Amino acid sequence: MAKIADKYFKTDPWKVIEEGFNPSYSRVSESIFALSNENLGVRGNFDEGGSVDSLRGSYINGVYEVQDLQKSYLGIIDKTHFMIPAVDWLSTKIILDDEALDLGKVKFTEFERELDMRSGVLKRSFIWFTASGKKIKLTFLRFMDMTNNEHVYQRIIFEALNFSGDIKLVTGLSFNMIHEGRNACFWGNTEESFANKSISIMSKTLKSNKSVFAGAIIDAEASFEELHNDKSVNLFSKISLIKDKPFIFDKKVVILFDGSEGTKLRKLGDSKLKEIKEVSFDSALERQKAYWTKHWEISDVIVEASNDEYNIAVAEEQQGIRFCSFQMAQTYNGGNVRHNIGAKGLTGEAYNGHAFWDSEACCLPFYLFTNPNAANKLLMFRYNTLPEALERAKMLDCKGACYPIATLNGEEACDLWQHASLQYHPSTSVSYGIWHYVKVTRDENFLWEYGAEMLLQIARFLVSRSGQNPHTGEYGFYGVMGLDEFHMMVNNNTYTNYMSKRSLEYAVDVIHRMKTITPALYKELVQKTNFNEDEIQQWEAISNNMAMPTAEDGLTFEQFDGYFNFPYLDVNSIPISEFPLYNHWSYDRIYRTSMIKQPDVLMFLYLYNSSFSDEIKRANYEYYEPRTIHESSLSPAVHSVLAAELGKMDEAMKFFGFVSRLDLDNYNRNTREGLHTTSIAMTWINIIYGFAGLRSDDDILHFSPRLPDRWKTLRFSFTWQGRDVLITMKPDETLFELLNGEPMEMLVYDKKAVLSNEILKITN
Amino acid sequence: MAKIADKYFKTDPWKVIEEGFNPSYSRVSESIFALSNENLGVRGNFDEGGSVDSLRGSYINGVYEVQDLQKSYLGIIDKTHFMIPAVDWLSTKIILDDEALDLGKVKFTEFERELDMRSGVLKRSFIWFTASGKKIKLTFLRFMDMTNNEHVYQRIIFEALNFSGDIKLVTGLSFNMIHEGRNACFWGNTEESFANKSISIMSKTLKSNKSVFAGAIIDAEASFEELHNDKSVNLFSKISLIKDKPFIFDKKVVILFDGSEGTKLRKLGDSKLKEIKEVSFDSALERQKAYWTKHWEISDVIVEASNDEYNIAVAEEQQGIRFCSFQMAQTYNGGNVRHNIGAKGLTGEAYNGHAFWDSEACCLPFYLFTNPNAANKLLMFRYNTLPEALERAKMLDCKGACYPIATLNGEEACDLWQHASLQYHPSTSVSYGIWHYVKVTRDENFLWEYGAEMLLQIARFLVSRSGQNPHTGEYGFYGVMGLDEFHMMVNNNTYTNYMSKRSLEYAVDVIHRMKTITPALYKELVQKTNFNEDEIQQWEAISNNMAMPTAEDGLTFEQFDGYFNFPYLDVNSIPISEFPLYNHWSYDRIYRTSMIKQPDVLMFLYLYNSSFSDEIKRANYEYYEPRTIHESSLSPAVHSVLAAELGKMDEAMKFFGFVSRLDLDNYNRNTREGLHTTSIAMTWINIIYGFAGLRSDDDILHFSPRLPDRWKTLRFSFTWQGRDVLITMKPDETLFELLNGEPMEMLVYDKKAVLSNEILKITN
Repeated sequence: MAKIADKYFKTDPWKVIEEGFNPSYSRVSESIFALSNENLGVRGNFDEGGSVDSLRGSYINGVYEVQDLQKSYLGIIDKTHFMIPAVDWLSTKIILDDEALDLGKVKFTEFERELDMRSGVLKRSFIWFTASGKKIKLTFLRFMDMTNNEHVYQRIIFEALNFSGDIKLVTGLSFNMIHEGRNACFWGNTEESFANKSISIMSKTLKSNKSVFAGAIIDAEASFEELHNDKSVNLFSKISLIKDKPFIFDKKVVILFDGSEGTKLRKLGDSKLKEIKEVSFDSALERQKAYWTKHWEISDVIVEASNDEYNIAVAEEQQGIRFCSFQMAQTYNGGNVRHNIGAKGLTGEAYNGHAFWDSEACCLPFYLFTNPNAANKLLMFRYNTLPEALERAKMLDCKGACYPIATLNGEEACDLWQHASLQYHPSTSVSYGIWHYVKVTRDENFLWEYGAEMLLQIARFLVSRSGQNPHTGEYGFYGVMGLDEFHMMVNNNTYTNYMSKRSLEYAVDVIHRMKTITPALYKELVQKTNFNEDEIQQWEAISNNMAMPTAEDGLTFEQFDGYFNFPYLDVNSIPISEFPLYNHWSYDRIYRTSMIKQPDVLMFLYLYNSSFSDEIKRANYEYYEPRTIHESSLSPAVHSVLAAELGKMDEAMKFFGFVSRLDLDNYNRNTREGLHTTSIAMTWINIIYGFAGLRSDDDILHFSPRLPDRWKTLRFSFTWQGRDVLITMKPDETLFELLNGEPMEMLVYDKKAVLSNEILKITN
Repeated sequence: MAKIADKYFKTDPWKVIEEGFNPSYSRVSESIFALSNENLGVRGNFDEGGSVDSLRGSYINGVYEVQDLQKSYLGIIDKTHFMIPAVDWLSTKIILDDEALDLGKVKFTEFERELDMRSGVLKRSFIWFTASGKKIKLTFLRFMDMTNNEHVYQRIIFEALNFSGDIKLVTGLSFNMIHEGRNACFWGNTEESFANKSISIMSKTLKSNKSVFAGAIIDAEASFEELHNDKSVNLFSKISLIKDKPFIFDKKVVILFDGSEGTKLRKLGDSKLKEIKEVSFDSALERQKAYWTKHWEISDVIVEASNDEYNIAVAEEQQGIRFCSFQMAQTYNGGNVRHNIGAKGLTGEAYNGHAFWDSEACCLPFYLFTNPNAANKLLMFRYNTLPEALERAKMLDCKGACYPIATLNGEEACDLWQHASLQYHPSTSVSYGIWHYVKVTRDENFLWEYGAEMLLQIARFLVSRSGQNPHTGEYGFYGVMGLDEFHMMVNNNTYTNYMSKRSLEYAVDVIHRMKTITPALYKELVQKTNFNEDEIQQWEAISNNMAMPTAEDGLTFEQFDGYFNFPYLDVNSIPISEFPLYNHWSYDRIYRTSMIKQPDVLMFLYLYNSSFSDEIKRANYEYYEPRTIHESSLSPAVHSVLAAELGKMDEAMKFFGFVSRLDLDNYNRNTREGLHTTSIAMTWINIIYGFAGLRSDDDILHFSPRLPDRWKTLRFSFTWQGRDVLITMKPDETLFELLNGEPMEMLVYDKKAVLSNEILKITN
């Protein structure tokens, strides 16, 4: 795996710290210091902007623009949508003696920036030396309210170090935001309003008609005047500073995007502004800290070095683990069923804010075991967008529901037809996600009310898209792309086939049980979907007779028909300078060899882990691992989990090092574009499935703790069916503690164990 | 084959006649009545325009506009080019008593339009009844000078039938031409000039900087005034008509596009205008007739019905055959090495005027046997665009030369990456074309001077693009699209593999012979191409060990690895209403079954016919024919030739009926967009290779005459290595007559025969 860490940030158990400022690393820092509360996100931009290289981005989950595409062949989308930067609520200008604060131009020292993951507060401070000889310390704080996700807060502390006198401040709310990739502002005319220390502004996107209201209340002992600018509303003040006496400026912001517009939105905005007026920065911060304290109680993962020589490495891992967990919680926590998890969360405009199959395959497990309500909401997003999936299947001349590769609103938004039309893992992932959710939560109500309908429509889609080999009679999928995007139009991709087989089997099982258990709901479903029970025979015929190409050893699955005959490419022979390949190789060149981009066979062995023997897992891991270049950031964690299971702990740790610090160490050299949110979701999976050996694809949980040598402790808790459990892994034993809830049965190292009120110790 | 004739034109041995006017068929007629002289082309537009549905198109070979495309992955083109309508030299307005002539609005009778293939003159006449009660016969003639391809002529004859009086005429030259598909005019500002009965205009394309001059001399007994309009130059006249006395208006036009611009072009234009001033319409027409007479002497193909019941069908075939031959000669005759043959010639803007692999695979044989100089020029186009092919290979991370799928200037212009990056038959077609040309003409000078260099660079490309099966050690091509565009990214496509094998073998052979025969040129080639003789070993290793997947019967080639396992689709089960499939099926749907678009295996059995046994041809024909939907118009002729060879004469004739009248009977329902020029080139091949059984892939010609039952005679002549030969096939015997040249050896029905000064009779 040709990946090298790019160390920059200071290691700390609970913080990410930047000491001194490196302008060439500015965009990476902006991504790392991005904050979000699921609803609103903002990159770690300097409040005051300036000439430093920057991708200015303040995003609202669900606010996107649409674009018509050139009409092409049938089934290929002719419009797409993409997340756009919304209102810039941090907008600030500071002028001292006619010198504008711009860290690209002014003289400053003691620059420090830190993100505290126990409060979600980002703090930045430095001392500014003006040309006129003045010295002032500035401290900027911000946080996104996790308890009220329409609220965000900014604080600026001014400390005049060698003078008393005026400083000029302009603070505002601006829709004058440029989408960098498309070099355009997508906001229409604005409507502004001023009152004493209060401003608000409304605008609407040009084509998608998304109306947004933003309002701010200023808490500061100064008087302010109105300032008019294009698409923005601003207040200006001359603040009188007194030497050594800190002056505090607080800005409390409400941002609304709730579907209402015009007068209604204005009225709602005004009333919300009144509410936030009564809240102080400090009291909101207290609530915020309480929120994060609770988060860490449930979902913290603690590692400790076994030996001094590992202290630094393990401290980095600890920081990385927490950083990933922090990102997951701030990106998505089930706050709104209209939300999903963009590949880069709300941290940049790359990938257009789109959610992919990652939501179910990579992110869901974290929520299942730390925030089951969020897991439920994530699946409800798919239920609510079932109409769009039905429509998409029709476009593809198929039946049932085909879920999109990339979307913000349920419609397919991926403008690469080869992905949008040939990859079906979003649909099987939804089916898998439902199955996994019900397996872990036993929330069968969800299954009968919502899951069954999705499963039925996905099964229909798969049947209509399948084909039959005229010689063997086996079924499979022809002309598809599996997870491995380095082989485009293949037949009988074992991932697609196996996932479809399981989806069909599960649909059959659910329909059968539903008929008995909830006959009334079943009847409704039949009517709603015009379901004919004969369809089940088809589902069974196909799932029972699904092609699974396998090598002569009877163990190694062939990734697709003919994969074994592809010219062999030693992936280690590719110079590191040629990665990422898409930027250095002709597009078609990546399709001609045995090289694969990311786990494909290994992915289904991971997802349905308990269905395959160790022998099969070993054979496939050893065959495919050397052929994989991990160009997808989702890839290493899956390899790490399987490597750990196969006792290849060194390999498992090598992959884990990458997974846990993917963005903190800018491994893929593109963190500047935003965080790999759905990839770093795999950190939790990597640890809990890899090292604690959790398996959640049976009716009870399995554990096979395998503590890496360099750790003396791995401690984590999780929630499961109303219980909270704390696990502490040590070199010789593992302690299971039921923090609350009823006793539970588990399988530890393949042996039944019952966890009740006493701590359960299992020796390795 | 789901194709149904749409009969409209009157059958005639030498003419295409439209009696009466059907506005809904207007665009089809415009295509059928398109004229060209290789350099200039014009659709059968009404001179006077009007409100009748029309695609107004006057084209210049090599005049195109360029367009930047969205940057995508490496190897995918980021700019393209497309033919645009150029100067409208027919521009005419006629007004009588304030009523403008517009056949969409005025009252008229006796409309007749005819194209005479013995002169290349298009004539249109009708009687116009004005609202004011006047009655006038108008006759329009036009032709494109075949002997001076910068000249075109228009004549209008006015015959006042019931009055004497004035009629108003505006005649002009206009660059105000809209590209319909892109809804834009691509011509910049014009520069106009007037003199007595003489006008001229120059303009330049907006981005590609193509400068064009057009000038016209009017011969008519009337005085003219200047008229100014946007991007056009016009003359206005009040013509005094006298009852029953025809008034003749002639317009003689020069159109220049020779790379010069500004003052230089203006000067050249003015001098050319002086020249055409001295030529009369009638004298030019005499020369034109002489040209076509000579054409028909060499290349006419005559069929006669064996039985009265076939009279109509055979008359239709005769007309179709001549129409196709006429189109070939007017589209391309070797007038300029910068020209090639667009898929639609110069008859419409569809396919952007681009030339495809069709030039070598489908059109070359016609020229080889009727106009070898044109065949030579067609290949020289590829030699002159070798630099672009070298550049394209580099873009694809390959070596050597990769010829474009679609081009006007040698650069790849196909904006569908899946075709431009995955289809390599343009390159193997060039190699095949060189081989075929040298085989037929024995023009080895061409081979040493130009052919060898192309062959060498094509061989390099193929080697760099090939891959090796790690298990069998065989070579092949991975991730390609063969001719059959219904299977996109396949491995070991037997067409690509076999054509590459033959290309490599031929390159080895040519390099070896060149070294001995023309050592000086060989040395130059080595230096120019930096050739290392060790490369030959690689060429041999690959060509000797090329994978050719074959069924267990040892006869049937598998179109590509795994083709036999594709789900079977009974192509006859597809309703006719679903054709063309691209307009009715989701794009990806066409890729999932055994259905194929056009011959793939059968194509190489046709191209290298003598290399395969009848048994192999039969097995493959019988396997693939029922799976082929002939969505490409190139397809039926290949099937017809092979069917004839296999004695399946009914099938052969069924396909032939379609081929010979593809556009005259609008079989594909898209003749409105332009003629299928390169497909109708196959008519000649269909007859001569199919029914006369010509095979030209040996050192001497082979014939196996197989006269269809419905014909009592098939007569055609051809030119071969300085000889002219006339062949007359009758039911019982075939007569071979050497019209001039040295005696020649042939193989007739696999027996040696010598044709000398006496007529040779071979009994069937």
